[in-house]
Amino acid sequence: MSVSEKPLIQAFLREPVDHVPIWLMRQAGRYLPEYRALRARAGGFLDFCYTPELAAEATLQPIRRFGLDGAIVFSDILVIPHAMGQTVEFREGEGPVLAPVRTVDDVARLDMWSMREKLKPVYETLDRVKRDLPGKTALIGFAGAPWTLAAYMIEGGSSRDFRHAKGWALRAPEEFDRLMVLLETAVTQHLLSQIEAGAEAVQIFDSWAGVIPGALFERLCVRPLRNIAARLKADHPHVPVIAFPRGAGMGYARIAAVAAFDGLSIDFTVPAAWARDNLQKLVTVQGNLDPVALVEGGAAMEGEARRILETLGNGPMVFNLGHGVIPETPPENVGALVELVHGWRG
Amino acid sequence: MSVSEKPLIQAFLREPVDHVPIWLMRQAGRYLPEYRALRARAGGFLDFCYTPELAAEATLQPIRRFGLDGAIVFSDILVIPHAMGQTVEFREGEGPVLAPVRTVDDVARLDMWSMREKLKPVYETLDRVKRDLPGKTALIGFAGAPWTLAAYMIEGGSSRDFRHAKGWALRAPEEFDRLMVLLETAVTQHLLSQIEAGAEAVQIFDSWAGVIPGALFERLCVRPLRNIAARLKADHPHVPVIAFPRGAGMGYARIAAVAAFDGLSIDFTVPAAWARDNLQKLVTVQGNLDPVALVEGGAAMEGEARRILETLGNGPMVFNLGHGVIPETPPENVGALVELVHGWRG
Repeated sequence: MSVSEKPLIQAFLREPVDHVPIWLMRQAGRYLPEYRALRARAGGFLDFCYTPELAAEATLQPIRRFGLDGAIVFSDILVIPHAMGQTVEFREGEGPVLAPVRTVDDVARLDMWSMREKLKPVYETLDRVKRDLPGKTALIGFAGAPWTLAAYMIEGGSSRDFRHAKGWALRAPEEFDRLMVLLETAVTQHLLSQIEAGAEAVQIFDSWAGVIPGALFERLCVRPLRNIAARLKADHPHVPVIAFPRGAGMGYARIAAVAAFDGLSIDFTVPAAWARDNLQKLVTVQGNLDPVALVEGGAAMEGEARRILETLGNGPMVFNLGHGVIPETPPENVGALVELVHGWRG
Repeated sequence: MSVSEKPLIQAFLREPVDHVPIWLMRQAGRYLPEYRALRARAGGFLDFCYTPELAAEATLQPIRRFGLDGAIVFSDILVIPHAMGQTVEFREGEGPVLAPVRTVDDVARLDMWSMREKLKPVYETLDRVKRDLPGKTALIGFAGAPWTLAAYMIEGGSSRDFRHAKGWALRAPEEFDRLMVLLETAVTQHLLSQIEAGAEAVQIFDSWAGVIPGALFERLCVRPLRNIAARLKADHPHVPVIAFPRGAGMGYARIAAVAAFDGLSIDFTVPAAWARDNLQKLVTVQGNLDPVALVEGGAAMEGEARRILETLGNGPMVFNLGHGVIPETPPENVGALVELVHGWRG
């Protein structure tokens, strides 16, 4: 008997599915008018994330509209540094701004003690969503990967060259690794707590994997992801764990080889045939329509989506984008994509 | 007898060299006080590029200081759209701003007729530099690749998601390809003219290769680069042609397989061992120290540089960065790197 009746979970556990499941990164977001209305009711962006009533509603909006196979909890990867006591601000149109962590003393001031308490609203959101979710839709939890969180925390936001984060990793590896160890622990605990609160699958976003120098990829990306996934699988063998080391290039094959991962999300630059030949034997491949094709819609979108389905759809796959939904995306294009994917037969 | 006595040219033509040659992307730039002084004498950035006296001096500054093996002409990839009549402005700290080209009519208004005249200052710069260059230093010309130029021209600058450029390529390939054909021609002509003016090697920068969806990589990156390189080699078989499809990931192997390329520049994410095993049989590999290591200097930089040399230095290689020099780089670190590379023996 199947562990789950939900197609998304079945696909990640390599069980037979009656259709290719689909969900979209940033499926809850500014492209939806109902999201913009909800957003206007919250104060700051983090208040929004930490108000279970609003965050649960944001999570459910795209599910009601499109009948997606997965609902990803509405939250942000920066709740972890925030819960550690780092100042995190979201300024409109600017991206996140953090008070940079750049010394061993800064690391020592991070508060691992009260994180759980601060993150409780996220778990309450999962609990609320779970109660209202359609029976076939799976609930997905997530966290940022240690390197990506470290990069934001050290740079104090996004960066052109990540020179502070990479410079520290190169100059004083043992100092830098103190932060990485704390983050590995925090990410693991946050994901375990999300599973306990009802998440049926979890995704780890290593959004800045694509800026790691080749020689550091094992240390900054593969090793922490392997440790986190191994711990999650030990406790919850039937909860799929998905990695998204965005922009990893040839590094994708190394993450696919990590036994504890059930799923690997690939960005839009990865040729589908390469993913089929090199990744799909090891993991369920998730991806990888270019979000620009979803903005375009029509024949261009359909052609690209069908090409991906023809190449990957007969192996274990979950349809997704290769990056998040772009705010200018017409919602009806998302509806058309879900219909196309659900109607496709290999 | 060797075609050239210059180590950089010898390395690209797979001839024996007495040391691993080195040059650095953005070796002429803001990290040098003499550059900042020179820059202050020019008006706008394009005026600077188009004043042969100043541009030649900027080209020569790092050669005098560091004894690099290659001098890349001081210019910009956006001189091509500018010479085609597109409005291009460089605003301090903002990056380039262009009046976007988004329709067939916009493409039709591009002026291929007077480009050569407008680009003459670049050729005059090469001519001046050539006269003052030390005997063992090779002069390098360059251009942006058609996709990268098209992306800037269509978006009107840099972009988070390149949705206008990619959207057009997906929606109306035959319209988009009209622009690509013009750019392929313009890039070819600009590189041929640089060779005629004294360039002994040329590099094509496909700086946005890393945002091309997998299914379009052949059409937007490989095909135009192949066409340009084939034409250059037909006319100038002994002038090395180097590609830098930045962020291409597994796409690097496809560019390496293009017979007309002598060199392939790799970004810092590419593991050196992978480049040795997959690229070096086909092309001279150029790269790929992370520019952050050059900001750090000291043992961190030396360790990374030696690791790259140990892995790639016995095949045909040219030492370079995996991206441009960061403005905060201490000049003395560049001196130390050149000394290390020149002193290394495999």
